[in-house]
Amino acid sequence: MSFSVAVAGASGYAGGELLRLLAAHPEFEIRTVTGHSSAGRPLIEYQPHLRSLAHLTLEDTKPELLDGHDIVFFALPHGASGELTAQLHRTGTVVDCGADHRLRSAADWAAFYGGEHHGHWTYGVPELIVAGGSQDRGSQGGGLVKQREALRGATRIAAPGCNASTVALSLAPGVAAGVIEAQDLVTVLAVGPSGAGKAAKTHLLGSELMGTANPYAVGGTHRHIPEIQQALRDAGAGAEPTLSFTPVLVPMSRGILATSTARLAPGVTAQQVRGAWEAAYADEPFVQVLPEGSFPRTADTLGANTCLMGIAVDEAAGRVVVVAALDNLAKGTAGAAIQSTNIALGLDETLGLPVNGVAP
Amino acid sequence: MSFSVAVAGASGYAGGELLRLLAAHPEFEIRTVTGHSSAGRPLIEYQPHLRSLAHLTLEDTKPELLDGHDIVFFALPHGASGELTAQLHRTGTVVDCGADHRLRSAADWAAFYGGEHHGHWTYGVPELIVAGGSQDRGSQGGGLVKQREALRGATRIAAPGCNASTVALSLAPGVAAGVIEAQDLVTVLAVGPSGAGKAAKTHLLGSELMGTANPYAVGGTHRHIPEIQQALRDAGAGAEPTLSFTPVLVPMSRGILATSTARLAPGVTAQQVRGAWEAAYADEPFVQVLPEGSFPRTADTLGANTCLMGIAVDEAAGRVVVVAALDNLAKGTAGAAIQSTNIALGLDETLGLPVNGVAP
Amino acid sequence: MSFSVAVAGASGYAGGELLRLLAAHPEFEIRTVTGHSSAGRPLIEYQPHLRSLAHLTLEDTKPELLDGHDIVFFALPHGASGELTAQLHRTGTVVDCGADHRLRSAADWAAFYGGEHHGHWTYGVPELIVAGGSQDRGSQGGGLVKQREALRGATRIAAPGCNASTVALSLAPGVAAGVIEAQDLVTVLAVGPSGAGKAAKTHLLGSELMGTANPYAVGGTHRHIPEIQQALRDAGAGAEPTLSFTPVLVPMSRGILATSTARLAPGVTAQQVRGAWEAAYADEPFVQVLPEGSFPRTADTLGANTCLMGIAVDEAAGRVVVVAALDNLAKGTAGAAIQSTNIALGLDETLGLPVNGVAP
Amino acid sequence: MSFSVAVAGASGYAGGELLRLLAAHPEFEIRTVTGHSSAGRPLIEYQPHLRSLAHLTLEDTKPELLDGHDIVFFALPHGASGELTAQLHRTGTVVDCGADHRLRSAADWAAFYGGEHHGHWTYGVPELIVAGGSQDRGSQGGGLVKQREALRGATRIAAPGCNASTVALSLAPGVAAGVIEAQDLVTVLAVGPSGAGKAAKTHLLGSELMGTANPYAVGGTHRHIPEIQQALRDAGAGAEPTLSFTPVLVPMSRGILATSTARLAPGVTAQQVRGAWEAAYADEPFVQVLPEGSFPRTADTLGANTCLMGIAVDEAAGRVVVVAALDNLAKGTAGAAIQSTNIALGLDETLGLPVNGVAP
Repeated sequence: MSFSVAVAGASGYAGGELLRLLAAHPEFEIRTVTGHSSAGRPLIEYQPHLRSLAHLTLEDTKPELLDGHDIVFFALPHGASGELTAQLHRTGTVVDCGADHRLRSAADWAAFYGGEHHGHWTYGVPELIVAGGSQDRGSQGGGLVKQREALRGATRIAAPGCNASTVALSLAPGVAAGVIEAQDLVTVLAVGPSGAGKAAKTHLLGSELMGTANPYAVGGTHRHIPEIQQALRDAGAGAEPTLSFTPVLVPMSRGILATSTARLAPGVTAQQVRGAWEAAYADEPFVQVLPEGSFPRTADTLGANTCLMGIAVDEAAGRVVVVAALDNLAKGTAGAAIQSTNIALGLDETLGLPVNGVAP
Repeated sequence: MSFSVAVAGASGYAGGELLRLLAAHPEFEIRTVTGHSSAGRPLIEYQPHLRSLAHLTLEDTKPELLDGHDIVFFALPHGASGELTAQLHRTGTVVDCGADHRLRSAADWAAFYGGEHHGHWTYGVPELIVAGGSQDRGSQGGGLVKQREALRGATRIAAPGCNASTVALSLAPGVAAGVIEAQDLVTVLAVGPSGAGKAAKTHLLGSELMGTANPYAVGGTHRHIPEIQQALRDAGAGAEPTLSFTPVLVPMSRGILATSTARLAPGVTAQQVRGAWEAAYADEPFVQVLPEGSFPRTADTLGANTCLMGIAVDEAAGRVVVVAALDNLAKGTAGAAIQSTNIALGLDETLGLPVNGVAP
Repeated sequence: MSFSVAVAGASGYAGGELLRLLAAHPEFEIRTVTGHSSAGRPLIEYQPHLRSLAHLTLEDTKPELLDGHDIVFFALPHGASGELTAQLHRTGTVVDCGADHRLRSAADWAAFYGGEHHGHWTYGVPELIVAGGSQDRGSQGGGLVKQREALRGATRIAAPGCNASTVALSLAPGVAAGVIEAQDLVTVLAVGPSGAGKAAKTHLLGSELMGTANPYAVGGTHRHIPEIQQALRDAGAGAEPTLSFTPVLVPMSRGILATSTARLAPGVTAQQVRGAWEAAYADEPFVQVLPEGSFPRTADTLGANTCLMGIAVDEAAGRVVVVAALDNLAKGTAGAAIQSTNIALGLDETLGLPVNGVAP
Repeated sequence: MSFSVAVAGASGYAGGELLRLLAAHPEFEIRTVTGHSSAGRPLIEYQPHLRSLAHLTLEDTKPELLDGHDIVFFALPHGASGELTAQLHRTGTVVDCGADHRLRSAADWAAFYGGEHHGHWTYGVPELIVAGGSQDRGSQGGGLVKQREALRGATRIAAPGCNASTVALSLAPGVAAGVIEAQDLVTVLAVGPSGAGKAAKTHLLGSELMGTANPYAVGGTHRHIPEIQQALRDAGAGAEPTLSFTPVLVPMSRGILATSTARLAPGVTAQQVRGAWEAAYADEPFVQVLPEGSFPRTADTLGANTCLMGIAVDEAAGRVVVVAALDNLAKGTAGAAIQSTNIALGLDETLGLPVNGVAP
């Protein structure tokens, strides 16, 4: 194993998923795991599914314990990573699974998160089309340019919001190809609650979530909206993208099923639509466009670094419908973080990342 | 008890819910329950939750056994009720929970169902606004006219599709008031599988549905689309309504959470939007508009004849978002059928119908 | 409506279920609902499924607000009802849904709960056999004597623990008839988390409970064990009953499925076993013994005041197996409380209590 | 990759799990996948989670297509493998995931399965203690002898029943050490429905299983009982083991949580009890005894070849309680099959088998 790794926030859900994937990664060695109230306890008490890491003990999340690793992953509440990072002087690669470094716009940060904006890191969705070259870094022209290029050699990486990356991956091909309009987009998502984290909150109790569908952040207030708009601007939306976005908690611990619709651009055929998505993801190891008439289930991506996507053109409604499924903790967070790190370090992008889901 | 009742299709889910509600109805007496392969067996074997009906035995679904009751409810697969009804000569009221008599347009029937069109019965969604008077029957002008008027004295009633009535109730107030556009509507629904019935199918197995979200009928193929369009035309849509409609099976046995969005009509304020819905449902016993910022959960309607609705205006997206919850078997099917029958017979509309859900 | 009612702890799960059932009770009028942190807020914010009670506002749980009602129901954390009750001077009937007054033995209380023992109230499981007459109150001999007799005229009622009453009802008939041994009993329960209440705790999060079975209180530590032993002593167990008791949280918000096994007493036939249970519950409106070969599902009791029971004799294993299902919030708590109150007040025992479950 | 592999029954759940694990196995190459009604279709239509195997096409389950592989896995309905195996002349290793070759006793086969008994193959639970040497094959004395020894070089392997192996692993250490009695055992299991297979049956519909706990095979009729008794005899039970066994379907697609209790042998201390289990599994890679006071959740084993076990001694009840969790499709079926095959072929036993679960 070549790279030493620390995971801060190792007692939570995103931290646990990072560790699950890292434990199977042939080039990474987990050296340090840290928590807050959990510090001093065996990791296995907080992550009883990680049997192969039963030897690890949680330490306190302090910069001096994190600094010096080849890679530090942050799986912390929003707002925590900025100050910590400033104290990591001997750490090659820092990957933030929180929101702190995803948005370029300080105004968007202020409007949707509030508090100090800690700046923008390289966005960790390699498959995202960045038309005309990423704004993160200049990249080669000719054909589709992907965010992957910006990630090569990156040392500060912002893992995406799980809902945001699902929707950005769903719509970017059509926006980039001009086959859909980037305005008046509508997305509704069925999501599992693990994306909301492990902090005890009444509205996330099992009794509140089992046997029911619960909407939240209705009406344009969800924090992933500016992140999606940013990605679609990068993908080549001419005018400012607009998006109606409604997440619905449903009774599954993991998973996102995003149904996104966009107006079909004038004069575009169904074949051109399908062609745009197929071209975008033809060679991707982790993003798959399903055959016509097929649509994905979240179960098919459980535990995997896979995003599955089905496309339909509804001529009568004048809309393209994209249904995308992924595991919010895997491809939506920890998998994206590790995939991006693989790229940043020049490793095989697929190292340590499962493509097959656990179903049924 | 004043009215004798027969339920055909009593061994299925819709039949079971009819019986559960009818058993608590003070004016209806369940005399006959029929099935097909279940004929000759005790009802309790097929509906083990209906302890108060343990004395009933399923008979064969034959017209001579059904005819002569004051009311016959059909809870049969599509296509079965037409021929049966023709042989009911001494039955005052027939209520069809299947799709056979919902659509006015034979062309729509042919396109979405196929086979012979059996004509149109009075549609069983009392709260639906029918602008300018229902086409089912002339009704009084002045203020909002509801489908309720058409149901008074009706003898042939078509209970609605559960998804269709949820969406029609969600959008009709805005269409009728002209505060939203009736074109380019987008609805995504989280639905439980009981709406798909009790027939054994692999894709409805528990192993296929638990822990996952599964989309179906993507791209404009769902049979409830023309039913919604018909309702919105009745509500006063000037031009032909268009709708992108995507249902997603989620892991709950019952419930529909429909997220419907519509473009805000030019110059309309958020207050006008909210006012349209509140005016539409202010006096309704079973349809409730929640206060600003509140949105419903399906659990809150479980087992009840209640539809809950939350409204948001997303100025940035230029869309109104309506989230509606109901129990597909109760308010979505059996409750609507019984409520409509109450009205048709001149009884108190709320008789026998619970308004409180079973939660958590 | 004849009796005025207050519910203390109205913002929680047990309180909500009391209110749901009370709202449909023809002789009770809900006058006062109280909470702690919820005081001052509309009830509907905490119980959004109780639409018919949307006019109620939560008040603070103070004795002066509770006192003077005909009936006060406590749905409070353990330890809270004792002091409050001491200040209710003008309240006819007090029903405690907490554990404080269930156990006769101060030693048991100290061992399993700790803190001050507040004494014993009449136990609220009417169908429980109390051999040779209840210790709560003298009762008529001849045939089976039930706890129902002790409840007539009672003014202080201890609603049962939901698991405890399920198991006590499961085993008492066999113990009373001498067809099973009351020692070396073994019970394993599949339970929903709503019995654990609405307080936010990490191990009760939806993410922790969905898709998994989680045991707790393994090895004889569950607080309902002495309550079951007390009931079985009352039922006529000669020697001290012993019980291995293991609850397992499973992914359903409500419901208890208790599988209890007991050694077959020497020389007893399968027919005698079945006969004991059938005799015990033949005339009960809410406890039903299913036919041979049938076993209950929790769904069949959802929302109902019904306990369903299936009995098998496993000759090879030398054990009787009793599988009992009920809704922990309904028959397990609030339903038992209301049924007991009906009896105490001389009303029809079944008033306001549904017998049919909500399924599927 | 060294060994060519065929999987018969590749469209079902056990077949799918075999393929998921085999796809990650460094020494096995999946060459042939067969089905029945699915023959001729792409595998990915039936196993949409197995993206890495999207190139495979299902062929018909015929002996000539299976024969000649180094290893053939059967994941077929009971009764199908016997005749097929007789026609495999050039196949080194045959592993049957069905029940056909698990039982030594033709009488047990006749009583619990019926039809022709196809004989007994080496039982695929490597960690099982076989006291005094396995009856499958002579093995070394001294210390604990495990079934692992019998598997070395085996060419016909019977993968275990998922419930049976869970319970056998739970109880064998205590039986072998004499710290529990092997008679009057009681096991109750919370199980997911995937163990029942992918055939469409009404009682396995999602609507029937979500939100409810459903017992089945109550009263000593489950087919895994003789398999458990056989294992406990092998583990050294002096007299014939007797077992009350009740499985309960709960709303999770995968997982078994078995709560097994046994009478504490006279004079045995809690420390001796714990010592027996810890000694039995101290060096096992896939069976873990949790620390005192800890008990497993099925989620912690999801997708892994891991069995987790917690032990409690309930002095008051006079019983030892063992709670064991595993994934019925992984460690319960496909994982056990592959682990046994690794041993049989002289490979590292842990090859290709994940130890960490996917949680939450």
